[in-house]
Amino acid sequence: MSEIHEECGVLGIFAPGVQDVASTAYYALFALQHRGQESAGIVVNNDGVFRSYKDSGLVNDVFNARRLEKLGEGNMAIGHVRYSTTGGGGRENAQPIVVNHLKGNMALAHNGNLVNSYELRSELENEGSIFHTTTDTEVISYIITKERVKTHSIEKAVQAAMDRLKGAYSLVVMSPSKLIAVRDPHGFRPLCYGVREDGAYIIASESCALDAVGAKLVRDIEPGEMLVFTKDGITEDRTHCGKEKKTFCAFEFLYIARPDSVIDGKSVHEARKQAGAFLAQQYKIDADIVVGVPDSGLDAAFGYAQASGIPYGIGFIKNKYIGRTFIAPGQKAREDKVRIKLNVLRSAIEGKRVILVDDSIIRGTTCGRIVKLLRDAGAKEVHLLSSAPAFKNPCYYGTDIDSRENLIACHHTVEEIAKIFGADSLGYLDLSKVSLLTGGDGSGFCTACFDGNYPTEEPTMSDKSRFERLERPISENPKFQSQNESEE
Amino acid sequence: MSEIHEECGVLGIFAPGVQDVASTAYYALFALQHRGQESAGIVVNNDGVFRSYKDSGLVNDVFNARRLEKLGEGNMAIGHVRYSTTGGGGRENAQPIVVNHLKGNMALAHNGNLVNSYELRSELENEGSIFHTTTDTEVISYIITKERVKTHSIEKAVQAAMDRLKGAYSLVVMSPSKLIAVRDPHGFRPLCYGVREDGAYIIASESCALDAVGAKLVRDIEPGEMLVFTKDGITEDRTHCGKEKKTFCAFEFLYIARPDSVIDGKSVHEARKQAGAFLAQQYKIDADIVVGVPDSGLDAAFGYAQASGIPYGIGFIKNKYIGRTFIAPGQKAREDKVRIKLNVLRSAIEGKRVILVDDSIIRGTTCGRIVKLLRDAGAKEVHLLSSAPAFKNPCYYGTDIDSRENLIACHHTVEEIAKIFGADSLGYLDLSKVSLLTGGDGSGFCTACFDGNYPTEEPTMSDKSRFERLERPISENPKFQSQNESEE
Amino acid sequence: MSEIHEECGVLGIFAPGVQDVASTAYYALFALQHRGQESAGIVVNNDGVFRSYKDSGLVNDVFNARRLEKLGEGNMAIGHVRYSTTGGGGRENAQPIVVNHLKGNMALAHNGNLVNSYELRSELENEGSIFHTTTDTEVISYIITKERVKTHSIEKAVQAAMDRLKGAYSLVVMSPSKLIAVRDPHGFRPLCYGVREDGAYIIASESCALDAVGAKLVRDIEPGEMLVFTKDGITEDRTHCGKEKKTFCAFEFLYIARPDSVIDGKSVHEARKQAGAFLAQQYKIDADIVVGVPDSGLDAAFGYAQASGIPYGIGFIKNKYIGRTFIAPGQKAREDKVRIKLNVLRSAIEGKRVILVDDSIIRGTTCGRIVKLLRDAGAKEVHLLSSAPAFKNPCYYGTDIDSRENLIACHHTVEEIAKIFGADSLGYLDLSKVSLLTGGDGSGFCTACFDGNYPTEEPTMSDKSRFERLERPISENPKFQSQNESEE
Amino acid sequence: MSEIHEECGVLGIFAPGVQDVASTAYYALFALQHRGQESAGIVVNNDGVFRSYKDSGLVNDVFNARRLEKLGEGNMAIGHVRYSTTGGGGRENAQPIVVNHLKGNMALAHNGNLVNSYELRSELENEGSIFHTTTDTEVISYIITKERVKTHSIEKAVQAAMDRLKGAYSLVVMSPSKLIAVRDPHGFRPLCYGVREDGAYIIASESCALDAVGAKLVRDIEPGEMLVFTKDGITEDRTHCGKEKKTFCAFEFLYIARPDSVIDGKSVHEARKQAGAFLAQQYKIDADIVVGVPDSGLDAAFGYAQASGIPYGIGFIKNKYIGRTFIAPGQKAREDKVRIKLNVLRSAIEGKRVILVDDSIIRGTTCGRIVKLLRDAGAKEVHLLSSAPAFKNPCYYGTDIDSRENLIACHHTVEEIAKIFGADSLGYLDLSKVSLLTGGDGSGFCTACFDGNYPTEEPTMSDKSRFERLERPISENPKFQSQNESEE
Repeated sequence: MSEIHEECGVLGIFAPGVQDVASTAYYALFALQHRGQESAGIVVNNDGVFRSYKDSGLVNDVFNARRLEKLGEGNMAIGHVRYSTTGGGGRENAQPIVVNHLKGNMALAHNGNLVNSYELRSELENEGSIFHTTTDTEVISYIITKERVKTHSIEKAVQAAMDRLKGAYSLVVMSPSKLIAVRDPHGFRPLCYGVREDGAYIIASESCALDAVGAKLVRDIEPGEMLVFTKDGITEDRTHCGKEKKTFCAFEFLYIARPDSVIDGKSVHEARKQAGAFLAQQYKIDADIVVGVPDSGLDAAFGYAQASGIPYGIGFIKNKYIGRTFIAPGQKAREDKVRIKLNVLRSAIEGKRVILVDDSIIRGTTCGRIVKLLRDAGAKEVHLLSSAPAFKNPCYYGTDIDSRENLIACHHTVEEIAKIFGADSLGYLDLSKVSLLTGGDGSGFCTACFDGNYPTEEPTMSDKSRFERLERPISENPKFQSQNESEE
Repeated sequence: MSEIHEECGVLGIFAPGVQDVASTAYYALFALQHRGQESAGIVVNNDGVFRSYKDSGLVNDVFNARRLEKLGEGNMAIGHVRYSTTGGGGRENAQPIVVNHLKGNMALAHNGNLVNSYELRSELENEGSIFHTTTDTEVISYIITKERVKTHSIEKAVQAAMDRLKGAYSLVVMSPSKLIAVRDPHGFRPLCYGVREDGAYIIASESCALDAVGAKLVRDIEPGEMLVFTKDGITEDRTHCGKEKKTFCAFEFLYIARPDSVIDGKSVHEARKQAGAFLAQQYKIDADIVVGVPDSGLDAAFGYAQASGIPYGIGFIKNKYIGRTFIAPGQKAREDKVRIKLNVLRSAIEGKRVILVDDSIIRGTTCGRIVKLLRDAGAKEVHLLSSAPAFKNPCYYGTDIDSRENLIACHHTVEEIAKIFGADSLGYLDLSKVSLLTGGDGSGFCTACFDGNYPTEEPTMSDKSRFERLERPISENPKFQSQNESEE
Repeated sequence: MSEIHEECGVLGIFAPGVQDVASTAYYALFALQHRGQESAGIVVNNDGVFRSYKDSGLVNDVFNARRLEKLGEGNMAIGHVRYSTTGGGGRENAQPIVVNHLKGNMALAHNGNLVNSYELRSELENEGSIFHTTTDTEVISYIITKERVKTHSIEKAVQAAMDRLKGAYSLVVMSPSKLIAVRDPHGFRPLCYGVREDGAYIIASESCALDAVGAKLVRDIEPGEMLVFTKDGITEDRTHCGKEKKTFCAFEFLYIARPDSVIDGKSVHEARKQAGAFLAQQYKIDADIVVGVPDSGLDAAFGYAQASGIPYGIGFIKNKYIGRTFIAPGQKAREDKVRIKLNVLRSAIEGKRVILVDDSIIRGTTCGRIVKLLRDAGAKEVHLLSSAPAFKNPCYYGTDIDSRENLIACHHTVEEIAKIFGADSLGYLDLSKVSLLTGGDGSGFCTACFDGNYPTEEPTMSDKSRFERLERPISENPKFQSQNESEE
Repeated sequence: MSEIHEECGVLGIFAPGVQDVASTAYYALFALQHRGQESAGIVVNNDGVFRSYKDSGLVNDVFNARRLEKLGEGNMAIGHVRYSTTGGGGRENAQPIVVNHLKGNMALAHNGNLVNSYELRSELENEGSIFHTTTDTEVISYIITKERVKTHSIEKAVQAAMDRLKGAYSLVVMSPSKLIAVRDPHGFRPLCYGVREDGAYIIASESCALDAVGAKLVRDIEPGEMLVFTKDGITEDRTHCGKEKKTFCAFEFLYIARPDSVIDGKSVHEARKQAGAFLAQQYKIDADIVVGVPDSGLDAAFGYAQASGIPYGIGFIKNKYIGRTFIAPGQKAREDKVRIKLNVLRSAIEGKRVILVDDSIIRGTTCGRIVKLLRDAGAKEVHLLSSAPAFKNPCYYGTDIDSRENLIACHHTVEEIAKIFGADSLGYLDLSKVSLLTGGDGSGFCTACFDGNYPTEEPTMSDKSRFERLERPISENPKFQSQNESEE
């Protein structure tokens, strides 16, 4: 029950002929919904004619049968789901961005965060450029377009733009006749592609989206790699490969990605079970039952139980009608919200010594309530384990981790936190284990949120303030406030 | 992943003083949402002044903060969630029903189905009565009101009405100063009550609703019992107790109720694990892994694994954004819908002999697809087990089981069904085990949907046609068609 | 710019065969929209199968193309538009009422108010009847149904019911095979019928609805008359004709009806011009221009100008986007609302002595503001004339005139009112002229709201309180409060 | 009942202190609603913090109390109402445009059309600029921003931009501390300002918006003039005045503007009456009554009657519930729509020789139907007069006149048209009279739509195609199709 939200999911489709790519995009985005619940968008390309629709809301809210029908058929499509903090962003920041230009239309979907967007944006604004959104994606669109008017092909423009962009970006770019997939040289965010029986290529942030549309995973896009899909086949451009050390976001494995996704050949579900197994090595606890916090703590709990031999149990029933729009009226609202979301299976818990596994501990606001639920149901002991290390630093690469002032691990020792939560003990996954989750040699991961080792230069001071300006909920942004959300 | 839908959930609150009973009702109804997703309603009673709101939709759709605020504070409230088949019912059939009458207001919420509603309704219509809905609840309201004008108290009227009503009814009735809970003498449907620390009494179809509002379960209302809550305390009227043999709906334990509910002192979760254990006794299969169909097959799968020693595994990831409003566009819509709802964890399944446990098999339309998902993910064998016996008969007591023509077990042998599904084998829970799930002596259950032994007289021929007329989606009802749904 | 609102408009269609009666009903109701803006409803009868839809809102809001399509084709239809005071009534009080009964379906639409509804309702409730609405229409439905179970035909039941109903009722009743139009013996409210080229009969409150669907007016239904339309033709039943003196609502001519309607052979527009001409006889004023308050004061202003020889002028421009949903935010909301609704044509008014004609003066809240608008635009004198006499009494027959405490003429002399409004003089149409507007002999009109001569017994004390209970906005009704409006 | 639609209305408020400028803007835009019904928007400036909201729909649909409240208080605001052809434009083209820039925020609202927007846009795109809309307004925003980064003040940037913009533009520009009103050197579109008692300045397309918020008209902004409102007062910049001959759109007087507006010191109502008087000079017809087509034909009909001595009459009753969202179901939809919108007052028309005055004749689709309505009501003769000359050319300056292929006067003689309409005679206002409507010397007007004398260079060939591309409904635009409308 993490309080962390990933920024975005991207999607691209290159079909062998004109077909109902809008529906395919819909299903694939639906499978990527966990990566962004704030807005959704699809652009369909029918032989150069772009039709797009995007709005605030879940995929299923934004698109209905009529909307999809109006997008029409096409031979290509790109899509996007986006997360942004409450009240922020809204409709106008939804992606994909479509650029209608003399050089040809371009549509772009982006997952990640640049660390030099302030500099790039300032430079552009000083040249008289106008920005309609507060997103890095618009900055990227500009950079590519500026290059495009200087060169002859969209892929050359993207190539040139890569020299200017610093930070995390998994991009899907669509021109009238080409579909381009790019991953930054660090490979911070996932991006893979697959192929369907009818020959359609699907590019997606995670392989679960390929499964949803019946495509088979081919492989991940490599860090720094650019793939260009055209009618003549796939061109692989590796100019930027190896320019930086690979630093894939460890938290994708621990929390963000869906357990049924496969990244770098490794099942996310298995990686989480492995985290639980590591926890069992670290913390040998005399207990009666291991339970996970639904849904994202279940895999690691399962792994702990298997490794420790302590029985795995179902400890909580989650109310499946809890959705994003759930309201919590009344004075004791917040507290009630946890209780109505999760109910303890008293028969499984009563009188037991319980090991409780959660995916991560950020602010810790809900952990205490969950421990209390177990106590109220008669648990004799509650030992809380986090399958992620303690969070101590902000992320500059696209995951919205809270500011340090709200990170409980920045202000309290493990013992203090256990006490705050009312747990008998508390343990985190050891930082050294993170890089071993996928069976590798311990390299290739970004763990900056845990240890502060940022693989890129950090944003400069003005960058950071810019970063904050852009990332803070726009509604609290003193410089510019817009109401253009679709909320009511 | 059953295709069966329960009819209703009821709720009552009797608070020690005027308070925010609307929010309490909201949370409790939210916990009962699984019992009815068609409509929701709350009536608040503030010292005799009734304020009500009801509409088609989920609890969370029907009520927002403003709606609840407009219901205001009160010392009593009743609520209802309702299921009805697609297109039927709609807004005007939503409950609770409020009767504004010279004898005092009355509000009523009902779960169940009468077997003599045709007779009662005909009799009333022949006296010149006008019906606005096609529900049994309105019939019951009339019967109580007819008695009420003859007698001096609402509880006497309810008592007298019980002599006339045949079939299943768990009722909550609210007058200006009293709250009444009644269960029919057979006790077909659950009904229990609990008390909160502040002295408020909560009546609910299931105990999970008590948990959601912080109330402790006191006990079930007995079959035939009437409890009257007033400022002076609780009066227990057992006049109708023991008039009929108790025949509680077995399918409540097997599918309908939430696993965290406790009925007749027995955890529903444990009953389902027991079903899995019985299956392990019945079907000894040489396999590598036991997986359940999320969410309702998980408990029995867990029970099977524990009893058999075959490892329990997580086989499927359910897309948690699938909701009631999910649309499935495109031509291969239905098939896609299963795939997008459930994705197989290939790493857990590939190369394995799998035991797949589902809660029930009705039409069997999705079972075949799920078996295929496992095959596609590389399962070597798939053995399908149903934790309920085979369905062969309609239910007259409030569960909407499909007509015989659609029940696959009415037309095919077990072997044929296995073949249809593409499963290596198929097994059902033995009928004789059903009554033993809760550890009892094998009596006290209605199993008519499995064995055809109806504990009441069946509806007469005209009753049945009436039954059908009332139960069929109104949109297909030749006699009366209304469009007053809120659909779009 | 009257503050009076009429209660309802009714409609019936009897077509020669199955056709798109829903669209016809839609157009006809749209032409009757001025008689009720609170809710709208249509019931289509296709050979005995009734399909209905009704909701709060304007005709155009309640019905869209899809809604009408779902009502389907039919050989008969009835419809209704309803007014009710703010917040009251709402969705559940919308008409027509449909009664689904063993004796056959019945649908009913009503315009008017009974004076004995309290007695009838009490009697029914004491027999155990349940009411779902607070409308007289439901009382009438019950009375007819009670008679219906005793007799063999719907028309006999309606006949018998007429003996019990006292007050104002223009009714359209539809059974599976018959369409019935009835007007109470006093003939308080209008009701007429016409015929279209294809042989379809249209019954409507006003002839403007016939024009809208291309039907030619045949004649008014007579007071006390019942017409029965069947496949075999029209049956005229005059049993109740002549039982009471005709007392048609004078205010229908003065304000309620549309100017393009013809009632009793007299154009409403001409009657209003006549009112202006009478005012010119009564008040000979030395002025430069005659202007009317849009829209309903224009006819009388025109009549005054023609009769007096003083030039008619356009004095105000009405903002045509002002609709029922117009919101008036800000602190000076109400005042702003008049100003934004009406703007003075300064060039026409500046420096002039102005005769300002309005249709009626009830509370007088807006009159003062309009006079001020003229003054601000430079009018040298403003003489205000009301083309209706002064209102001093409530109406029990279906027009929602304010309570006496709010009627300005009950508390102030003409001179005082002129001073309050800031007018140089004020004049009302003489009461004696009202009955001469249509060129008759001065008999046949109900003028109770002006002179207190009620043509029926007044409601008894309890009747009146009942009346008030029923008529007051339900939201302020202490006995029963419902939120079931569709507002947001 | 013209088929012409004006493009836009603009608004600006400069208040003496922080106040509820959002509500003021709302009322003023509501008064300008006739200038654009497609979208509405308001930007509030509270000491440099901009809050904005805009969407498709009428002012009253886009803004509710909560929306206005969220805009908050401020010391400045600008607003816009926009027309665009069906299906086109939509949400993303709504104005005002807000530019968030290092040099300070800027918001901009525009009425008119550039003739060199293709060239400007191409130039900008070739520099790598990205466009989000298809509006001239975004082009203007860019041009100003490009100048802004070169200079020190927003007014200097606007000044410099004026050298580059060709065509029609009435602009309101808001920076953190300044409000700027600009009118192009030709003065094609109206723009005026007024002052309220509290010292607030209101800039608006028409003076009726000043009336609506209680402000007194000061004067029109001169062609080429720029007014800068700051805390220190108003600065008048006349650098561009007199650079071009004044050519104000004659059709503003004849149709577009509200009759209660005053432009160049002349009442629009009086100008239209004058048009009627000129028609009486041109066409001396022996007739019994003069009637106008509501609403915009009434003024000229009145003027004709006064000048000719033939009695003015009310010939039609307009259904006041007809709004933008009116649906016309059924097969004879379009025809029905005219009949339900306008009903003839038979008593006024029957047996009469009628002079029918309409504001203009474009396609002529409704004229024929209106003539037929009069004939059906018994008119003996119908003489149709148009208070505008015949339309023969497209407008490049912001009025959406149909393409030549649809202009009836391009394909038929006056006699043919009269015959098509079924009129006994037909007459147009003489072109020579247009420039005399306001009492001037016959100069100062653009009459290109009538005579083809365009006061600027016409768009070049590519300009024109660009023009067409931009002006055509986007849904039919082959290059770019977006669904981002809010319609359903």
